[in-house]
Amino acid sequence: MTTLIFGHQSPDTDAITCAITFAEYQRQNGNTDVEAVALGTPSAETQFALDYFKQAAPRVIKTAANETDTVMLVDHNEAQQSVPDRDQVTIEYVVDHHRVANFETAAPLNMRLETLGSCNSVIYHMYKEAGFEISPQIAGLMASGLISDTLLLKSPTTTDEDRRIFAELQKIAGVDLEEYGLQMLKAGTNLSARTDQDLIDGDAKSFDMNGTHVRIDQVNTVDLSEVYDRQAGIEDAMKAEADKEGYDLFLVIATDILNSDSVGFAVGDHSKVEAAFGKQFDDQGRIALPGVVSRKKQVVPPLTAAYNG
Amino acid sequence: MTTLIFGHQSPDTDAITCAITFAEYQRQNGNTDVEAVALGTPSAETQFALDYFKQAAPRVIKTAANETDTVMLVDHNEAQQSVPDRDQVTIEYVVDHHRVANFETAAPLNMRLETLGSCNSVIYHMYKEAGFEISPQIAGLMASGLISDTLLLKSPTTTDEDRRIFAELQKIAGVDLEEYGLQMLKAGTNLSARTDQDLIDGDAKSFDMNGTHVRIDQVNTVDLSEVYDRQAGIEDAMKAEADKEGYDLFLVIATDILNSDSVGFAVGDHSKVEAAFGKQFDDQGRIALPGVVSRKKQVVPPLTAAYNG
Repeated sequence: MTTLIFGHQSPDTDAITCAITFAEYQRQNGNTDVEAVALGTPSAETQFALDYFKQAAPRVIKTAANETDTVMLVDHNEAQQSVPDRDQVTIEYVVDHHRVANFETAAPLNMRLETLGSCNSVIYHMYKEAGFEISPQIAGLMASGLISDTLLLKSPTTTDEDRRIFAELQKIAGVDLEEYGLQMLKAGTNLSARTDQDLIDGDAKSFDMNGTHVRIDQVNTVDLSEVYDRQAGIEDAMKAEADKEGYDLFLVIATDILNSDSVGFAVGDHSKVEAAFGKQFDDQGRIALPGVVSRKKQVVPPLTAAYNG
Repeated sequence: MTTLIFGHQSPDTDAITCAITFAEYQRQNGNTDVEAVALGTPSAETQFALDYFKQAAPRVIKTAANETDTVMLVDHNEAQQSVPDRDQVTIEYVVDHHRVANFETAAPLNMRLETLGSCNSVIYHMYKEAGFEISPQIAGLMASGLISDTLLLKSPTTTDEDRRIFAELQKIAGVDLEEYGLQMLKAGTNLSARTDQDLIDGDAKSFDMNGTHVRIDQVNTVDLSEVYDRQAGIEDAMKAEADKEGYDLFLVIATDILNSDSVGFAVGDHSKVEAAFGKQFDDQGRIALPGVVSRKKQVVPPLTAAYNG
């Protein structure tokens, strides 16, 4: 049976492209019966990258066990971010750059996690170690994931090694990645084309924080006022979703990718958010988060600490 | 503060030697402020290996947070097999070859797991990828862990890659590893020098199986009758320990390393063991496990399945 390779739910550009670049790694490693799939459709940003590098979007799956007994996870490991029937299949490989939680296997497996800015940076290392060829197309897709996750190397998750990899990928891809990257990020900020529901789902992840269900979504924009104009509708959608899914806290972070600042809206227990960032929501229900661009590094850790404190 | 590197509780030869070989890897990687330590004293088998390759035994620690804020784990990841105050320190690295369970971090980390016969095989790969030097002493210590975990390449956990690594290590160490390995394994089978308590602690690991506390110990021998002669005393010690620690099942596997067969004794719920192996304990309280030599591959998976079934 074909081994399925996929990233997390509500896939971002790194999740989608990692499935493609890691499937190619597996093929070069002699494991030809693999397929890159996805747990959702590409965002406008991701579609821009796929179109630019002439790559078809991966097939979307809802469940895995109906068609395979073996999967490989990229760019995630937490159960609630993965395919819902994951406990019915064998996880053979995990490549990731996140914390580890809600992850358990019955048997030994392969795992490769590094503290780098994108999961594609980890996969780049694996190609180099194995001496595998990185085609210009694969380099472009890897770079797209790296650019997306690090907001063009501006996020505090960016390491010197990511910058080195970015330069190497630029050489292989033969593309001005600074210019391409800004175009790609901007392609993901056309909020007017998206419904409120799509905005709160687009890049959302669930977390278990000390027994509490926390949902955190991130919306990139080049103009925060576009988000403010739609705040009431977004909050209605958040409330409906939180009621339906039982989230104790739903936090949406709107990030100005040009100025590297964010603003948060929350539904549920605001006090933990305020404790996490040491400041209050204003009377318009917004919490200013200057300099915050990384959910992983600047939102999840302080919020986890607030729930554990 | 010095980063501590250690293997699991009741350390076997792979756990002890991995701490040493991975500390050397870190040093060659420019991370000089590391110390290989251990969560217990070396067994007779491990001491034989350390003496042979002129390596001092690692310092034994009971807790970590009293002296450091950062640790690296080798040859394990499950919390109940690790240092008891692990939740008070940051886990920066995990190198392992076991299943993943009871493992959670607040922040991203480095992890490297491969489905190989020993954790030292994984570390060998990391040295080669980084182009680091493997001294004859380090090669001998790596080989000792590999020999111990695979019973001289006879365990079903042994992969072709482990055999290739064994041959490479033999060249570097300049030692006849077949002959050395048999001496090392035999050095660990002098049961007459060990108390009943030491026999049940020596290579014991705890597992959470569907909410049940399971303890599994393995005793290597060249003569199973030596173990039979002491069965009553061993079972008394098992009972006392199970009462004290609250184990629902305590299983001791005595393995004949020359014939690659095992026999099990159990305290607690025998039915799960019988379900796991599809056979009964005899009237002397023994369950024959022909061909079973690997706890990881031949005992933990069927027992886990029996508890989940």
